[in-house]
Amino acid sequence: MTNAYSKINEQDITRLTEIVGADFVIQDEASLRDYAHDETEDIMCLPEVIVKPNSTKEVSKIMAYAHNRRLPVTARGAGSGLAGGAIPALGGIVLSLERMNRIVNIDMDNLQVQTEPGVITEVLQNAVKEKGLFYPPDPASSGWCFIGGNVATNSGGPRALKYGVVKDYVLNLEVVLASGEVIETGAQTLKNSTGYNLTQLMVGSEGTLGVVTQITLKLIPLPKYNLLMLVPFSSAKMACAAVSAIFQAGITPSALEFMERSAIDWAIKYIGHVNFKIEDSVGAHLLIEVDGNYLETLYQDCEVITEVVEKFGADNVLFADNDDQKRELWKLRKNVGHAVKLNSIYKEEDTVVPRAQLPELLDGVKSIGEKYNFTSVCYGHAGDGNLHVNILKGDMSDEDWNNKLHEGIAELFHYVKQLGGTISGEHGIGLVQKRYMNIVFSPIELKLMAAIKNSFDPHHILNPQKIFPEV
Amino acid sequence: MTNAYSKINEQDITRLTEIVGADFVIQDEASLRDYAHDETEDIMCLPEVIVKPNSTKEVSKIMAYAHNRRLPVTARGAGSGLAGGAIPALGGIVLSLERMNRIVNIDMDNLQVQTEPGVITEVLQNAVKEKGLFYPPDPASSGWCFIGGNVATNSGGPRALKYGVVKDYVLNLEVVLASGEVIETGAQTLKNSTGYNLTQLMVGSEGTLGVVTQITLKLIPLPKYNLLMLVPFSSAKMACAAVSAIFQAGITPSALEFMERSAIDWAIKYIGHVNFKIEDSVGAHLLIEVDGNYLETLYQDCEVITEVVEKFGADNVLFADNDDQKRELWKLRKNVGHAVKLNSIYKEEDTVVPRAQLPELLDGVKSIGEKYNFTSVCYGHAGDGNLHVNILKGDMSDEDWNNKLHEGIAELFHYVKQLGGTISGEHGIGLVQKRYMNIVFSPIELKLMAAIKNSFDPHHILNPQKIFPEV
Repeated sequence: MTNAYSKINEQDITRLTEIVGADFVIQDEASLRDYAHDETEDIMCLPEVIVKPNSTKEVSKIMAYAHNRRLPVTARGAGSGLAGGAIPALGGIVLSLERMNRIVNIDMDNLQVQTEPGVITEVLQNAVKEKGLFYPPDPASSGWCFIGGNVATNSGGPRALKYGVVKDYVLNLEVVLASGEVIETGAQTLKNSTGYNLTQLMVGSEGTLGVVTQITLKLIPLPKYNLLMLVPFSSAKMACAAVSAIFQAGITPSALEFMERSAIDWAIKYIGHVNFKIEDSVGAHLLIEVDGNYLETLYQDCEVITEVVEKFGADNVLFADNDDQKRELWKLRKNVGHAVKLNSIYKEEDTVVPRAQLPELLDGVKSIGEKYNFTSVCYGHAGDGNLHVNILKGDMSDEDWNNKLHEGIAELFHYVKQLGGTISGEHGIGLVQKRYMNIVFSPIELKLMAAIKNSFDPHHILNPQKIFPEV
Repeated sequence: MTNAYSKINEQDITRLTEIVGADFVIQDEASLRDYAHDETEDIMCLPEVIVKPNSTKEVSKIMAYAHNRRLPVTARGAGSGLAGGAIPALGGIVLSLERMNRIVNIDMDNLQVQTEPGVITEVLQNAVKEKGLFYPPDPASSGWCFIGGNVATNSGGPRALKYGVVKDYVLNLEVVLASGEVIETGAQTLKNSTGYNLTQLMVGSEGTLGVVTQITLKLIPLPKYNLLMLVPFSSAKMACAAVSAIFQAGITPSALEFMERSAIDWAIKYIGHVNFKIEDSVGAHLLIEVDGNYLETLYQDCEVITEVVEKFGADNVLFADNDDQKRELWKLRKNVGHAVKLNSIYKEEDTVVPRAQLPELLDGVKSIGEKYNFTSVCYGHAGDGNLHVNILKGDMSDEDWNNKLHEGIAELFHYVKQLGGTISGEHGIGLVQKRYMNIVFSPIELKLMAAIKNSFDPHHILNPQKIFPEV
């Protein structure tokens, strides 16, 4: 797939200015640098121009123009991505959706919300919460990421094991195609067996098939209560082994998070201090939440869970007694990634396996680490088998880091595939994982995906250089 | 899209016999007639040959051969479909998956099941139930339909409002493409953000993109208890209006089924008698189920529901006290469709709208019925806004039935679209609804779907004449 792209010229700027207004066509050096990266390692690619449309119509006009001119367009949410999906790899236009930040309608009769893509996930969560409703997907970056970016990566977060991921809440999308044409992918309904599922094709496609301009999400009644417990284990392996046993006991927690010891230590160091003590003998923690409408049955659930984890050697279970304690525990968990990254050059992998394979995955990470001489900090959504592996550069040589480490990662991903898993559970492929796509997909499977890409975006102007290994 | 297909000749039969054995290449007249139809109205199209493979490898060889020879291939489950999806519209090969009826593995550690497509849905449900696990999707035909057909149509059933539809349980698929190449669409994981979602593209594609040969489904712990209540209302409109109010009260029932009076009467007439009396003043019923692990809280849920429905004039709520009563009520509901169809030539529509729009939809059905002079019996999954509309021929003239009724159906579907809904919630489009596809999709949207079809099946040998309006 070779594509001839144009460079942005004066006329392009004039036309883009006509569409969105002079204030929203931005070319100053500082801004270009701000929009050159997301949260992925230290990678930067400067865009030629940043354009900030305020409506579907403006997005449509921009795309029609870019299509005609063969200008690369990288749609961008808040830039919180961890796979380089929002990095403008070939320059061109960064299409920032930040001004399209309106919650269009909270439909109390149908338990749905229509929203623009630029709404911060937490703002959306809180807006529906005020009405007694619940939008469960909750990425660690929920305080600043955009709902549109969540749709683009099919993100998840800690509640996915009970409530599912973004794809399970998206009912319908308004999408501007590469050509500027506007489509609706589905209907405002909970069920739909009408033609191919373009909605689900779009979710997780990382801005390579179209620009999402409006999103209809399913909501559910907000559970009245939740209980949170922090469970220490002597080893990471024991913690992982307890995970499947909890489900087998008939309990589906609303969160089941894993942190190995070093992850907790990094996070505590980062947030200052915590109001509880972690014994030296602790090798890992599970953070377990249950939720529902009846407090007394949640306590019963917790009793069952306690019985299960005791079989795996856990004692000293810490129950969060009030909202402050819950917030503290969640803050700890949500800051692990950030804390680890502040302390070293790193790469973050987003491995996912069937959850019972988690102990094997963890073993694999550590033994491959020994072989390739890297240290890793592991944590993540154990209930889904989704393990985040932060690989630290530490004292690895630049040569090894830049040229040898990828062999270790490839080996890890081959192992993940062998366990029935895949290379991204919720971060996406973007720029940094595409070289590994052929580990989990055959040439035929990749060809089918490429054919879909060609149908939606024949000139490959949308988020070029992403997902596919050979571009 | 014009395609030149071949007719089956002697050499084809020889080759097919080599692949699956003589016993499984069938051409006798009686069998051809058996495989000429599904449960859709009275439509028949004779296949030229029925082939019954026993493995993915055999399916692959058949497809590679058919691809090369340009033979139409219609994959078939149990033939329980209601939109003509399994009817071999152009003759050719009916590829029956009935011999691929093995449950490959019930994975107790990961709460997953791997199954072949020819397993009867109820057999699968019971097999996992014995292990304390739950596969919730439950089409009315579950006693004889195949799980593969459920995947092909993205079917639902009464539990979808709480537990979702088939698409929410499919984690991974093995698929034989038109070319005979075998792909895997995803991974054995609960989360997946790795490339385009081919799994979800395949679900609901009605055998037009590939032949599903193995299915990995998510399972959940089996809820320990359920309670069932039959709630009479003075009018269908009051019943529909109560539906949204139940959700707004914070309850998510595990089933919330609607039957208008005539639907109940037909069903009672069909199954003989029932052990309860329906007052003359009753205009419609809701059948409401709640489920969970704690019986005492289910009673509390029922109290909340009772308070809500009383506001809509319901009294005389009937609680099913034991399993026999529950079975009787479910038998009543599940036989409505069958009962109605035995009594008249009919067409069945599968409308779906946002659930709060259900009263308006019902009004629309009746007033369009008056305009076009048709009688309808309405029932279905009110909790999802999914209303089955059985249109009876009654004393309508053949001329009106054959040539005018479709205008009335088109008007109904335009109205459904206007309400935010679509034309199929769980039955699919198949042969009989394709003429209405352009009511809910724009030419651009249909063009995108057609491009996907072309990528997967360039010679259009898979289930030709289905889904797309212009073929």
